[in-house]
Amino acid sequence: MKLAMIGLGKMGGNMAARLLRHKINVVGFDFNTEFVNKLVKDEGMEAATSVADAVSKLEGQKIVWLMLPAGEITENQIKDLIPLLNKGDIIVDGGNSNYKHSQRRGAMLAEHGIGFIDCGTSGGVWGLDNGYCLMYGGDKQFADVLAPYAQALTHADRGWAHVGPVGSGHFTKMIHNGIEYGMMQAFAEGLDLIKGKEDFNLDLAQITELWRHGSVVRSWLLDLTAEALKDDQKLEAIAPYVADSGEGRWTVVEAVEQGVAAPVLTVALQARFRSQDSKGYSYKLLSLMRNAFGGHAVKSSK
Amino acid sequence: MKLAMIGLGKMGGNMAARLLRHKINVVGFDFNTEFVNKLVKDEGMEAATSVADAVSKLEGQKIVWLMLPAGEITENQIKDLIPLLNKGDIIVDGGNSNYKHSQRRGAMLAEHGIGFIDCGTSGGVWGLDNGYCLMYGGDKQFADVLAPYAQALTHADRGWAHVGPVGSGHFTKMIHNGIEYGMMQAFAEGLDLIKGKEDFNLDLAQITELWRHGSVVRSWLLDLTAEALKDDQKLEAIAPYVADSGEGRWTVVEAVEQGVAAPVLTVALQARFRSQDSKGYSYKLLSLMRNAFGGHAVKSSK
Amino acid sequence: MKLAMIGLGKMGGNMAARLLRHKINVVGFDFNTEFVNKLVKDEGMEAATSVADAVSKLEGQKIVWLMLPAGEITENQIKDLIPLLNKGDIIVDGGNSNYKHSQRRGAMLAEHGIGFIDCGTSGGVWGLDNGYCLMYGGDKQFADVLAPYAQALTHADRGWAHVGPVGSGHFTKMIHNGIEYGMMQAFAEGLDLIKGKEDFNLDLAQITELWRHGSVVRSWLLDLTAEALKDDQKLEAIAPYVADSGEGRWTVVEAVEQGVAAPVLTVALQARFRSQDSKGYSYKLLSLMRNAFGGHAVKSSK
Amino acid sequence: MKLAMIGLGKMGGNMAARLLRHKINVVGFDFNTEFVNKLVKDEGMEAATSVADAVSKLEGQKIVWLMLPAGEITENQIKDLIPLLNKGDIIVDGGNSNYKHSQRRGAMLAEHGIGFIDCGTSGGVWGLDNGYCLMYGGDKQFADVLAPYAQALTHADRGWAHVGPVGSGHFTKMIHNGIEYGMMQAFAEGLDLIKGKEDFNLDLAQITELWRHGSVVRSWLLDLTAEALKDDQKLEAIAPYVADSGEGRWTVVEAVEQGVAAPVLTVALQARFRSQDSKGYSYKLLSLMRNAFGGHAVKSSK
Repeated sequence: MKLAMIGLGKMGGNMAARLLRHKINVVGFDFNTEFVNKLVKDEGMEAATSVADAVSKLEGQKIVWLMLPAGEITENQIKDLIPLLNKGDIIVDGGNSNYKHSQRRGAMLAEHGIGFIDCGTSGGVWGLDNGYCLMYGGDKQFADVLAPYAQALTHADRGWAHVGPVGSGHFTKMIHNGIEYGMMQAFAEGLDLIKGKEDFNLDLAQITELWRHGSVVRSWLLDLTAEALKDDQKLEAIAPYVADSGEGRWTVVEAVEQGVAAPVLTVALQARFRSQDSKGYSYKLLSLMRNAFGGHAVKSSK
Repeated sequence: MKLAMIGLGKMGGNMAARLLRHKINVVGFDFNTEFVNKLVKDEGMEAATSVADAVSKLEGQKIVWLMLPAGEITENQIKDLIPLLNKGDIIVDGGNSNYKHSQRRGAMLAEHGIGFIDCGTSGGVWGLDNGYCLMYGGDKQFADVLAPYAQALTHADRGWAHVGPVGSGHFTKMIHNGIEYGMMQAFAEGLDLIKGKEDFNLDLAQITELWRHGSVVRSWLLDLTAEALKDDQKLEAIAPYVADSGEGRWTVVEAVEQGVAAPVLTVALQARFRSQDSKGYSYKLLSLMRNAFGGHAVKSSK
Repeated sequence: MKLAMIGLGKMGGNMAARLLRHKINVVGFDFNTEFVNKLVKDEGMEAATSVADAVSKLEGQKIVWLMLPAGEITENQIKDLIPLLNKGDIIVDGGNSNYKHSQRRGAMLAEHGIGFIDCGTSGGVWGLDNGYCLMYGGDKQFADVLAPYAQALTHADRGWAHVGPVGSGHFTKMIHNGIEYGMMQAFAEGLDLIKGKEDFNLDLAQITELWRHGSVVRSWLLDLTAEALKDDQKLEAIAPYVADSGEGRWTVVEAVEQGVAAPVLTVALQARFRSQDSKGYSYKLLSLMRNAFGGHAVKSSK
Repeated sequence: MKLAMIGLGKMGGNMAARLLRHKINVVGFDFNTEFVNKLVKDEGMEAATSVADAVSKLEGQKIVWLMLPAGEITENQIKDLIPLLNKGDIIVDGGNSNYKHSQRRGAMLAEHGIGFIDCGTSGGVWGLDNGYCLMYGGDKQFADVLAPYAQALTHADRGWAHVGPVGSGHFTKMIHNGIEYGMMQAFAEGLDLIKGKEDFNLDLAQITELWRHGSVVRSWLLDLTAEALKDDQKLEAIAPYVADSGEGRWTVVEAVEQGVAAPVLTVALQARFRSQDSKGYSYKLLSLMRNAFGGHAVKSSK
């Protein structure tokens, strides 16, 4: 068994390594040759000098697994692969693509007889050791071909499934991430309130560790949070800034399109937007209005 | 007709002036003698040197109108007034007291035979010219006594009413302010989005002025906002900080106690909390978690 | 002066009538001939038997004003108009189109030399008497041509403006409606809490009327609400169902795309989604979970 | 070792059983004699005929552990216990009391020299087998006395800690439950969106099971949800009604009192309020307003 892994960053690199450790051959390519060389040296990966080179090193029904940034990079890579592949070959997009794009791409590839699996991938940097969670969308025949790879990538052959037609893998992953945003925000708010209750002077590291055992909120996120708080809970070196990937945004847009109230997923996203907003124009407007009707003092900037 | 006005700040001072301009005698007291002197000079108010002095200058059924900061100051003032008043006299609390406190105070004063009206007062600094909006809670007999004063304080004898029993005046004002928070936040968000659509380069002063005429969102808040944006819409001198009085908080607590979803009133309050939070500890926690599971870079503070 | 008005429903019909009352000639068309006939009879409108007929009855620089449902109907009508118009003629879309569609349509029409104004229109059924609020997006030269019509449609020549390039008229209207949702929800929540405070037994008609005079929340929405509550505040005949047009949804999507927190506009929309959801599947899931971890009883459906 | 367990319902009964299985003597009392008899028969518990009888069956430093409904029942029981106990004896309140009440009760008992531990208890019906999570608030000397009991009640002597002064145990549990609300709501919203994407026809049981292995959202709540969905995901027999205990409400009030934005915890609570609201008065008001300004049709009830 062998596949080509295109994109060897945090996710793709670890997945290549895990496959190799499970005796699956991987020919890998990334523009960053350091990533390539490290996998060659440490894990015995076969190196390719280009995507075309990687494809040429596969035989029979070729499988090209993309772990690339969503958007134009993935779009262009898929288009570039078309002339390099034969009918029946399979492209897997394991990145965080918008599911609507995956639906379009699947249809486009189907016109060329090329199989497409949109694979929602969860597990973060811990997937290498713990196994990933994989959500396959696409034709069942192609998902079946990918089963042995999924077995290697997941823990004890669990944590993967063919969930539905093209697009449904990334859709499922999108919702997963929406839920993740909500859970993270729930913990952040709760811990913030514990810290804010200053007269109790509570120890967040102790409490998060405690909750890991027997409480209703026990979860992997809590495990990691407890671990991360062990050394430092002041977090003075960390900026109050939270990035957001596209997935949280798409989930909210999906809810609007479905006409479904998803308030937790939405306010969790908005909290991140707030953290990214250094100007606070809406606050300034509010302050202006308060001054206008009530004569309340406006706080000067600086 | 005559009453004692205790507290001559932005609200009390203007109310005293409006009463005087409507030929109602006012004896006024404030610890700030500048406030007192200005009203004596400009409006012909009678000055008192203490609350007791003010009360002593009233005759017959005495009316003492308090325009004081809510909380202990109002609480103590009401208690101090008890020995100075006779059965049938009336204390009006026109400040922003919590309605539950007003209920308790009304009961306490009733034991001494002293009437109590909790008067929700809206109108801000514009009430002097435009007239106030007054919501009287308490026994109808006392509200009736206050009718002529309300006629002077409101525009064309409109904008006041006896709404219900003790506490209901401040309750109604509390809800009014909750709604006000929601409306302000709605405008702030909308205008923020207009500003954020940079390729249209829209003029907030033009648009808010435009909306004043014939649109569904026309309102007094919009009038003031349009006026305030005329000279400056960059708002660089204004800090992105919005204070909140107790009213918005009490409204949210009321909703929780009633078991009623009031999401707009709540998130409007939370937006102000966000603006007041310079630490962003919850954001730091989120950033920490993202790093913990996904290896996402944490942004360093400074 | 003369224009063709296509679509003579609640909005278009009233606008035609207002133009006619201001001595502007209107040739009108609607598939509903009752609408047409009524305007002919009551207001002296010139009837057309088709859009082509309406266009043929214009001279010189032709102006075709569309007041149609957004989406495919407007899209198709604009396309159908292209062969009927000459360079320099103007199409006005006064409906609630998505601003991105208007941007695309403006570009498409520009290729044919046809002017396009996307006109955000506010005022509802009251515009006939009170005047509308019009937000013109598009080239200034075309907006200038429409100025006399705007003067007739608005109160005292106020309430209209050329706000920016193509799309910005509908964009501004979209945000306007987002704000409207927020304001409506703020009032609905506040009044719901007043009603919920049963021991005060407050009168919503009295309080809303009261607030109209001098309060900070005075607004046109409050005027209408007070009027509507006068006869009945039990609302037993009204179903707890609130429709939403596209505008509120687009505003929330816009906020997500800008990465801007707009919590009030969002939760106001979500409240409507809740009202439309007769199944409550998410509630069932919560009930299921509570049962699963805590053994809490599940309430049976009927 | 021996303690008295007062209240032998779902939580207290299971905790008594777990203690007994760990060779700790329990004398138990509940008004429901069935509960008592079952524990006597199945687990070898010693029965008491009253609280006084239970206390009389303890020796030395007496420990009375209350697992009662929060509020007046707990309040009265604690007061009734005072004359029955000696200096140095300990009352444990393991129920879901408001932490401010616990602070007051702790102070009251301290005046009588009686120790008080407010013990936040998590784990639900699964605690019997899996062990509970216990958060002790109070003087460390009393928490130390309770250590051996905690060892029996938790899994492998983990899952308990003395977190801080009186009140902090229930405070910590309150926040825990707030987070729990948020997590539950995050899952409910996400799964609702998956179900709502009808063209994918996804299997919620498959997806929740899948996510248990390697995904970022893996958690005990997910474990239970996956299990519960195995047999039925239509949930037609379950009413869309979600009860809320006091804890979620108190958490939101705490956030307001701290002036901290906790949007996820808040909207999660509000979702439950929505589920409990069969009248939808706020929706009726919105529908009324839409009709008032836009002439939009109102949907009739029934």
